[in-house]
Amino acid sequence: MKLSKLVGDRFKETPSDCVVASHALMLRGGYMKYVANGIYSSLPPLKRITKKIEEIIRQEMDALDGQEVSFPVALPASLWEESGRYESVGSELLRFTDRNGAKMVLGMTHEEASVQLVREYASTYSRYPFMIYQIQTKFRDEARPRAGLIRVREFTMKDAYSFHTSQEDLERYYARCLRAYQRIFARAGIPEVVCVASDSGMMGGNLSHEFMLLTPAGEDSIVLCPECGYSANMEAAECIYPAPGDGTAVDSTRPAAGQAAGSLLPVETPGVHTIDELADFLHIAPSSTCKAVVYQKNQDDSYVILFLRGDLEVNEAKLTSFLGADIHPAVITEESGLQAGFIGPVSLQAPEGSEILFDRSLEGLCGLACGANREGWHMTGLDMKRDCADAVYRDFAKASAGGICPVCGRRSLTISRGIEVGNIFQLGDKYTRSMRMQYVDEKGGSHTPIMGCYGIGVGRLAASVCEARHDDYGPIWPISIAPWQVHLCCMRGDHAEVRAQADRLYEALQKAGVEVLYDDRNVSAGVMFSDADLLGAPVRLVASPRNLKEGCVELSLRGDKASAVKIPEEAAVDGVLAKIRELNEALEAEVPERI
Amino acid sequence: MKLSKLVGDRFKETPSDCVVASHALMLRGGYMKYVANGIYSSLPPLKRITKKIEEIIRQEMDALDGQEVSFPVALPASLWEESGRYESVGSELLRFTDRNGAKMVLGMTHEEASVQLVREYASTYSRYPFMIYQIQTKFRDEARPRAGLIRVREFTMKDAYSFHTSQEDLERYYARCLRAYQRIFARAGIPEVVCVASDSGMMGGNLSHEFMLLTPAGEDSIVLCPECGYSANMEAAECIYPAPGDGTAVDSTRPAAGQAAGSLLPVETPGVHTIDELADFLHIAPSSTCKAVVYQKNQDDSYVILFLRGDLEVNEAKLTSFLGADIHPAVITEESGLQAGFIGPVSLQAPEGSEILFDRSLEGLCGLACGANREGWHMTGLDMKRDCADAVYRDFAKASAGGICPVCGRRSLTISRGIEVGNIFQLGDKYTRSMRMQYVDEKGGSHTPIMGCYGIGVGRLAASVCEARHDDYGPIWPISIAPWQVHLCCMRGDHAEVRAQADRLYEALQKAGVEVLYDDRNVSAGVMFSDADLLGAPVRLVASPRNLKEGCVELSLRGDKASAVKIPEEAAVDGVLAKIRELNEALEAEVPERI
Repeated sequence: MKLSKLVGDRFKETPSDCVVASHALMLRGGYMKYVANGIYSSLPPLKRITKKIEEIIRQEMDALDGQEVSFPVALPASLWEESGRYESVGSELLRFTDRNGAKMVLGMTHEEASVQLVREYASTYSRYPFMIYQIQTKFRDEARPRAGLIRVREFTMKDAYSFHTSQEDLERYYARCLRAYQRIFARAGIPEVVCVASDSGMMGGNLSHEFMLLTPAGEDSIVLCPECGYSANMEAAECIYPAPGDGTAVDSTRPAAGQAAGSLLPVETPGVHTIDELADFLHIAPSSTCKAVVYQKNQDDSYVILFLRGDLEVNEAKLTSFLGADIHPAVITEESGLQAGFIGPVSLQAPEGSEILFDRSLEGLCGLACGANREGWHMTGLDMKRDCADAVYRDFAKASAGGICPVCGRRSLTISRGIEVGNIFQLGDKYTRSMRMQYVDEKGGSHTPIMGCYGIGVGRLAASVCEARHDDYGPIWPISIAPWQVHLCCMRGDHAEVRAQADRLYEALQKAGVEVLYDDRNVSAGVMFSDADLLGAPVRLVASPRNLKEGCVELSLRGDKASAVKIPEEAAVDGVLAKIRELNEALEAEVPERI
Repeated sequence: MKLSKLVGDRFKETPSDCVVASHALMLRGGYMKYVANGIYSSLPPLKRITKKIEEIIRQEMDALDGQEVSFPVALPASLWEESGRYESVGSELLRFTDRNGAKMVLGMTHEEASVQLVREYASTYSRYPFMIYQIQTKFRDEARPRAGLIRVREFTMKDAYSFHTSQEDLERYYARCLRAYQRIFARAGIPEVVCVASDSGMMGGNLSHEFMLLTPAGEDSIVLCPECGYSANMEAAECIYPAPGDGTAVDSTRPAAGQAAGSLLPVETPGVHTIDELADFLHIAPSSTCKAVVYQKNQDDSYVILFLRGDLEVNEAKLTSFLGADIHPAVITEESGLQAGFIGPVSLQAPEGSEILFDRSLEGLCGLACGANREGWHMTGLDMKRDCADAVYRDFAKASAGGICPVCGRRSLTISRGIEVGNIFQLGDKYTRSMRMQYVDEKGGSHTPIMGCYGIGVGRLAASVCEARHDDYGPIWPISIAPWQVHLCCMRGDHAEVRAQADRLYEALQKAGVEVLYDDRNVSAGVMFSDADLLGAPVRLVASPRNLKEGCVELSLRGDKASAVKIPEEAAVDGVLAKIRELNEALEAEVPERI
């Protein structure tokens, strides 16, 4: 490809709405163009990248005995009604009506479509297990698309669905798929992607993992234990607390809640509304308080009152999942009888239908301060065992940095930001049962099969690689997915001999099967190199008057000036091939074996 | 691939709603599954076919210096408003509203999106010409989807857009693209596809061609002249008529309209309403009558009254294109003053705002019968020259079988049915002008570029090949797009030695790079062969106890029993490779050179 003919503009200025590097670089490099909120067209360089990513994914899916199919983008609402998701999924599911008044949706995931495709086929045990996958356009009507290709509304996704007759079989396959995902990310050039336990959310099922690229540009929080390797999405991370009086005070400058029993005493606390104000007022640590966080269920506005240790935050994903209902922060009315800012677990008069919940962080604590359910008053000396004898404790709190690892027990947790580049789910029978898929076993008995599903967003993966592999000047594409392997610069396009040399090299490289982008324009060195940086080919070859005098060309690696070497023109093709081989080998060394 | 693991069911019965062979065979063979009206999921065999078709298309587009991009499926309505098509296109354009209330459409074609993508890039002459293309999902909300993949609502299409600075340059490129299309169809195994002139319809522009596979299953009518090779879509075919009195009477058993002048005489014709009734009543040929066909414009319900020779039919595409307005058959009210069934060109009292049009077929005729604009009465002796002196004659009639060829002048026209498998358009500046795309020429002057566009429906092409290449038992896929090149049957899967032989062959063929589908099931010969027929691999290899005794396997071509030969097992792989080579060479022999 000659750069003079490449469709797309490159430019210097970072567009003002870009908050992450990949967004800015992919706009500046002519990879994509904005069409509408969260919707982009792909220009040739991005299309070349995504095709290579798709081919890597396809190879790994095929190696798992996956069979490629394709499901429609526009689906009848009736399919989503069968599974119950037409009602249960929010407005990110785009619903519309066709010319005949039939209700339809734009597919944002295809569990329903996959069950519809195979439910007659897979009616006997001998056809299990199997996996089908597609690489297809999806639409998810995000409220707030952001960060370029990282959170868009229309995207290309590989989604795979496996079907099994037993949990053991699903687990075996799931493990193979997890490994295939690690291979995909490593082959795409980001082997550092971590696999974390996650919350299944609207997908249902009981076990799921997310593949996270750790980067400050990410929008997810991930809890990691550098000591033992434990990792989980914040939404799924389990919280463990120091046993009362274990000596590891949460705030060592103030007295912590202890085991010593004292009486429950009302204290007048005028103007004190928040935990911080209360802790200051009483000169105790926030961890020595019991705070109330109040929600309302979306469906009937009934109250959910959750008590947890004052220094912790609520993990709403855990709470929602426990309640099986969507919630919002409460609007506390006068009629409710609740005293906002002074709610405590003792003598609480909650409106009928309220749910009162206790986080595990409070279990066994005493000497706590809490609300007195009376305007302007708190209590001290709260003993959970004594004063809240009926409390049932569950895990509703967010893990926090410095917290205790639920696996190794060390106080070693760190919180990182990450981009979710893939996810896998054990779905159980959520879809097969609701959609009445059955198979007959060897003895003639009928059963409901179980499913796994496995997704990767192709564009988001491309953007994530850019996020992980770039410098100030542009992306540094891994050789496996680079739009072109080699960027050939002809410095001084008006210099006949240099031009002739560059033309020769272009032809020779193409003949050798190398994907080369040839900058044949008569532009300044500045423009030429900044464009080469933005296009990010990993290998660069420069023909120039000075090099020509020495009968040489300059070979270097993108982002590594120190790698530049002069090689004789006649050795250039071999030199390039050797570099490509080296880069490929380095990449492959990071790819784990298939299982 | 082992057939025992292939996802999808095959069955014998033709589903009752199938009116064409490809629809029935592709359902029966497990190629696809119905999801909703005009919407299908693809199963693995179809996915394999369409991927091969896409690869052929991609190679031909790349050879035209096409650059692959991708446009969104969901587009903002504002883009279609810029071109004016948001209003002008009917309800086949699916319009919807997103969660934020923004108006959107599902892309059914991407002229607007292509202009949006390149209008800044292509702001200077030096960047022309160029072509961009995509292979992407489209949605067209057809009123009546039919015939399986031939007319669907959701489909995968390759659409290409070229941009030029002069008509000459567009024409040069258009010719290359036309040739590329001929190559694509030939490479996909249907070199017999014909290229016909067509009406541009909603696309605009002035020259376009359709690529037609002639088959009774088609829904388009194509006018062909076997004498000179003239071909045109019915909508675009020009009509030529015998000069009055040239001796070639349209209905030789009855008197034809002549040149002899007579007086205009009223005739009472009680109960006569149609042309056939009138011709019977007067004992003249329908070609000796002048009939009126009445429409109303959709926009204001004003009348359009078209007179043409009684034996001809109106070509509504030509009429719509002349009027520049959509029309529907008229509802003739009493207030209109029109006498339905008795409308004639003399003394016609048409409502204000009506358009009165004359088809060329009437030019110079006399001695015609026509309506008298009076209930129960007609006229005879109509002389167009004398009685309709102000008439302007234009071409509004449908070409008919046996009609005169507009190119060679012979009375040789035939009408065939065809499936449109591709189309190409010279769009002129319809989109670039309305969307304000401009480029600066060498002297600094601003101009509007012109465009060509080029489409192929991938699924429809697959179905068309099936339509053209099948027998009663299934498709006979061309080697270039067959889901598998070879179908290997193991007769008597329970026979250990036959099984071992088939396993050896399967492995050896795969090792040799052959795409082989291995029927490893323990099923009857009937089931095995009918499945092989439905899956349509061009080469078949059969291992059986009888063949094994002779140390042989049987090699044959799909649909050609006479081709069956026994070859020693050790020669089987070479035999298969030779057959594949032969089939490929035969196919390539039909592919025209690139220009």
